[in-house]
Amino acid sequence: MFILLSVFMTLPVALLSFTPDGAPNAAAFAESAALVFLLGVIGVLSTRRKSRDLKPRYMFVLTVSSWFIISALSSLPFYLSDNGLSLADAIFEGTSGITTTGATVLTGLDDFDKDLLLWRSILQWLGGIGIIGMFVAVLPFLRVGGMRLFATESSEWTDKALPRMKTLSRGLLIVYAILTTVAVLTYWVSGMSLFDAFNHGLTSIATGGFSTSDFSMGKFNDLILAEATLFMILGSLPFFLFVREMHGQHFALFRDQQVRLFLTILLTVPALLTLYRWWVSPVHFDPLHNYISVLFNVTSVISTSGYASEDYSAWGPLAFVVFFFLMFVGGCSGSTAGGMKIFRFQLSLIVLREQLMRLLHPRAVFTRNYNGRAVSDEIISSMIAYTFMFLLCLLLITILLASLQLDFITSLSGALTSLTNVGPGLGDIIGPAGTFGPLPDAAKWILSVGMLMGRLEILSVVIVLSPGFWRG
Amino acid sequence: MFILLSVFMTLPVALLSFTPDGAPNAAAFAESAALVFLLGVIGVLSTRRKSRDLKPRYMFVLTVSSWFIISALSSLPFYLSDNGLSLADAIFEGTSGITTTGATVLTGLDDFDKDLLLWRSILQWLGGIGIIGMFVAVLPFLRVGGMRLFATESSEWTDKALPRMKTLSRGLLIVYAILTTVAVLTYWVSGMSLFDAFNHGLTSIATGGFSTSDFSMGKFNDLILAEATLFMILGSLPFFLFVREMHGQHFALFRDQQVRLFLTILLTVPALLTLYRWWVSPVHFDPLHNYISVLFNVTSVISTSGYASEDYSAWGPLAFVVFFFLMFVGGCSGSTAGGMKIFRFQLSLIVLREQLMRLLHPRAVFTRNYNGRAVSDEIISSMIAYTFMFLLCLLLITILLASLQLDFITSLSGALTSLTNVGPGLGDIIGPAGTFGPLPDAAKWILSVGMLMGRLEILSVVIVLSPGFWRG
Repeated sequence: MFILLSVFMTLPVALLSFTPDGAPNAAAFAESAALVFLLGVIGVLSTRRKSRDLKPRYMFVLTVSSWFIISALSSLPFYLSDNGLSLADAIFEGTSGITTTGATVLTGLDDFDKDLLLWRSILQWLGGIGIIGMFVAVLPFLRVGGMRLFATESSEWTDKALPRMKTLSRGLLIVYAILTTVAVLTYWVSGMSLFDAFNHGLTSIATGGFSTSDFSMGKFNDLILAEATLFMILGSLPFFLFVREMHGQHFALFRDQQVRLFLTILLTVPALLTLYRWWVSPVHFDPLHNYISVLFNVTSVISTSGYASEDYSAWGPLAFVVFFFLMFVGGCSGSTAGGMKIFRFQLSLIVLREQLMRLLHPRAVFTRNYNGRAVSDEIISSMIAYTFMFLLCLLLITILLASLQLDFITSLSGALTSLTNVGPGLGDIIGPAGTFGPLPDAAKWILSVGMLMGRLEILSVVIVLSPGFWRG
Repeated sequence: MFILLSVFMTLPVALLSFTPDGAPNAAAFAESAALVFLLGVIGVLSTRRKSRDLKPRYMFVLTVSSWFIISALSSLPFYLSDNGLSLADAIFEGTSGITTTGATVLTGLDDFDKDLLLWRSILQWLGGIGIIGMFVAVLPFLRVGGMRLFATESSEWTDKALPRMKTLSRGLLIVYAILTTVAVLTYWVSGMSLFDAFNHGLTSIATGGFSTSDFSMGKFNDLILAEATLFMILGSLPFFLFVREMHGQHFALFRDQQVRLFLTILLTVPALLTLYRWWVSPVHFDPLHNYISVLFNVTSVISTSGYASEDYSAWGPLAFVVFFFLMFVGGCSGSTAGGMKIFRFQLSLIVLREQLMRLLHPRAVFTRNYNGRAVSDEIISSMIAYTFMFLLCLLLITILLASLQLDFITSLSGALTSLTNVGPGLGDIIGPAGTFGPLPDAAKWILSVGMLMGRLEILSVVIVLSPGFWRG
């Protein structure tokens, strides 16, 4: 993985060598790539005679530590560049990239070094395919947070299943590459510069949200916003269903309960919010323009991308509250999106309905079904453990941020946006019109850990940190 | 119950007839009492030949409807008085009383009609014993929200169990009366006027929080604040354990897991917050005075009383956040306190720990224990259904309040403080230094329903409102 990362580190400089200005931080990238390559070679040499042990215990350590270490290494070009970024800034920006969060400490993006802008987008793109791969190959196997629900025969890690998993992985990579290419080309023909199109294409499919402007996507026209909405939605759908569609299982996507609720939310909430905006300020109201803007920003938050075309936190109290709650939701499992994920809300609703029925009919027997599969008690308990741990981390990070004298809305929405990998928070500092730059360094460290915990479904990190893990 | 309520309605006028000023709203109270008495007589006459049916379905309807109707009837004296209170104001104040919430729409309390002040305190006292009775006689039987955990042989509603339940009920009433008397006398000898002592005695044990001053208990000295802290703690403990202590089961209280965590929170959080206040503003810091103030206000929120001695929301961001999260917690089940209740957090922790262990040892078998009793899967699911419904109601009420153009903090903390029966919210309008008076009438109606839903453990209300309930 280190060697692969070092290869990608040469990409921004290589791509910009065809432009008249070139890459301003070529030296920083060269140093970073060399260091990471060296670490990779040392790693390969020191482990090549060891047998591979796939016990859950090692899988946990491997997964968690590799995300943490790769975050740190990805930050090297930011730290080694001449932009005066502190270590905390660099780590925050790198982590926000690889976790596809999209929160930034940078301002003046429109005139920023192009190689670093490219590196941010490439990081999100890598993080996107990384989380899709982890969803297929690691998470169901680790039985974390109800993920067992998505276990298939191919996620059993037996010798028999390996070829099947290879086929699936190749399919996922092809889908991801095709969607990215389509996004880049669509943006380009719709009027973006090639540089902007390339960056936004990469970060749209990865539901990352890094942009090349301080106005995020606010400087583009309604057509491009509508296209971006579509690509963010595609990035929030379960990628293994795309592969099934490719293999001839038609309508696999629309038969999926996750996808259905996700699309239902996108069909209703933006329409209602548009009506609300009309009710709040009816003067000079342009229905289509406003609907596209609301749809774009709602999709950006629920897909945990984090772009903004306007300061949606200024649309009135109802919009503020709705955006706050949307930050929890997230996209579908198996996509590049973060958040608590649609399926967990659906499982909770199933438990709730079952309990209400049981109150009325104490002796009846119920069966739970999700996407046509029985839902075991184990899956429910592990979903609950995830939810409880999520809320506990939200509480802890909020308290830590508030102890740095950050106000209530900044602390709460900052903790939330890091754990759900949305990107911007709410309030004057870290809201859609602000950045994370003004926060104290300690807050940036805390939020970096929060982003990684969110990306790793929280429980995988907690388990590695628990004392019982290292005993016996 | 109506007849009993009408008798209590004569109490403020009767008590004040011994004072030189008398009762300014004697007519309003007489009309209210007469109407409620009449309704009671009609009720008795029209049902005395009917057999009593104790199916869960009827128990749900009876419990929910009686709390809603009694809230409405309790508001009559406020509405019929000459204070210009709107219907929404009167209903809000009455509901806040009977649910022991303590949120108020009134200002100028120091010069307010004494009979109405007395009525507010009496309502909270009645609401307090009402919820204790409901906990013993109704909730475990209805299996709502994990309450089955507290079911004993005496909550089985068989003919055999009835005498045992009568003994328990008498014991609870005696404990409640003794504690109230002690509180009133203690306040009186510590320097309160008899009127203030009577009112605060009633509302302390009921963890209600209605006061006789706009400064709440801010006008009393540290000794009285310390005493009030003690009485609020006593009101937040499971009352059936007091009865067990009376019957010779010594240390029943301190062996209870709920009580232990509740007291642990009170031993740690105020101490830490006092240090934080010292760190934020070290000049003129009086450790003892500040500790008592922090302890009093933390106890007031966690016991869901709702008194305040200072504007604790102005103690700095960390204090703000901590008070926000404390509003969720609540006291012990079986007490007069509201909130989500300590035992639900403990059950969640048990599930969480079990899941973490299972991730490490997939084949191990676990048993769940709480207070020495096995915890069935049914109890866990019903606790989860409660939690999920609580959060859903919090979301819904917050959105409704925000749609009335109330700001984020007012909407969120207003929804929370009504569902948890704490009393004050946070922010400039409904925070500890404000009142609910400035809110629009629609918000007062919504919050009144929220207070009743919170008091009725939410699910009991939801079940009665569900279409399936009225079918078949």
